[in-house]
Amino acid sequence: MDALSNLIEALRGLPGVGPKSAQRMAYQLLQQRARGLKLANCLQEAMTGVVNCAHCNNYSASKICNLCMRSDRDLSLLCIVEGPADVTAIEQTGAYKGAYYVLMGKISPIDGIGPEKLALAGMQTRVAENHTREIIFALSPTLEGRTTAHFIENYLRPYNLHITQLAHGIPSGGSLEFLDGNTIGSALKHRVAY
Amino acid sequence: MDALSNLIEALRGLPGVGPKSAQRMAYQLLQQRARGLKLANCLQEAMTGVVNCAHCNNYSASKICNLCMRSDRDLSLLCIVEGPADVTAIEQTGAYKGAYYVLMGKISPIDGIGPEKLALAGMQTRVAENHTREIIFALSPTLEGRTTAHFIENYLRPYNLHITQLAHGIPSGGSLEFLDGNTIGSALKHRVAY
Repeated sequence: MDALSNLIEALRGLPGVGPKSAQRMAYQLLQQRARGLKLANCLQEAMTGVVNCAHCNNYSASKICNLCMRSDRDLSLLCIVEGPADVTAIEQTGAYKGAYYVLMGKISPIDGIGPEKLALAGMQTRVAENHTREIIFALSPTLEGRTTAHFIENYLRPYNLHITQLAHGIPSGGSLEFLDGNTIGSALKHRVAY
Repeated sequence: MDALSNLIEALRGLPGVGPKSAQRMAYQLLQQRARGLKLANCLQEAMTGVVNCAHCNNYSASKICNLCMRSDRDLSLLCIVEGPADVTAIEQTGAYKGAYYVLMGKISPIDGIGPEKLALAGMQTRVAENHTREIIFALSPTLEGRTTAHFIENYLRPYNLHITQLAHGIPSGGSLEFLDGNTIGSALKHRVAY
């Protein structure tokens, strides 16, 4: 295997990249080598420099992440999410001003991920130090997400928290005829005053 | 900008990678850091180590590429292609046993790529040293491809070569009703004995 085949093989390891795309990426980078070297540097720096925020467990370049450094967040609210992308998605709405805790995964027995693989001790410390009043589950509406929420609910029971979860129902702009039965059923069951 | 944002930004520079995919790639690499560091190494090695083959101008880890090192190729045939991916595609058919010359581009005035940007001198040397009898144009059936072929035809006129191009017509397995008019028209015009 030469340097070029190795590069194509390594690029194939990226999510969503098949053999043809990997080849195309490699050839484009070889035509713009400064860009390829820059990507190599960024990778090196991120892989060795990015840590987990000591407060929220999200990826961060410093010990405490930018979001946890801010003084304008309501620490009595703690939103529990599965991954960093969920924090980005919620922050983009601008609808939440509390704190986060990032589990970096969810309980999934089929993938061999038990509760011990999630950073639950850090979450407990957060709840204690923030004097959290309410935790909001923003987990996937899947079996794994529900299992995780259920486990955390028991885990944090001693703190006597108000526990909520994101509302389930029909998404904005969703056309009823294309929605699955579970979603419509759930939206009917949790219908609210008009 | 911190190390994580820099990485996401650099990944966005890859062809076909948008902001969401770049974010997903970065987070996955951070969960599997050994893989991220390996990719960084492969990039570094390829960007600094891959050269253009002194014979065919294709990317190569050594001065002469593996294909040009082989003794079982018919050097009297020279297939002219635009890029490395074209060589791979033709080699996969197993239908060609001659030599290649890779232009690494095509004449495209709209992108500011004139004939001087293509490695034409190397192609001329190849024709002279290989005692090429026939050159086969395997260029894109586009205006740029035709312009490039036309220019090379004039450029190599002193060598009195037999010049051919890939046949144009209906692709294998193509359903007539979904083919464009140009292709069907060209296939009619160049119809062959049944």
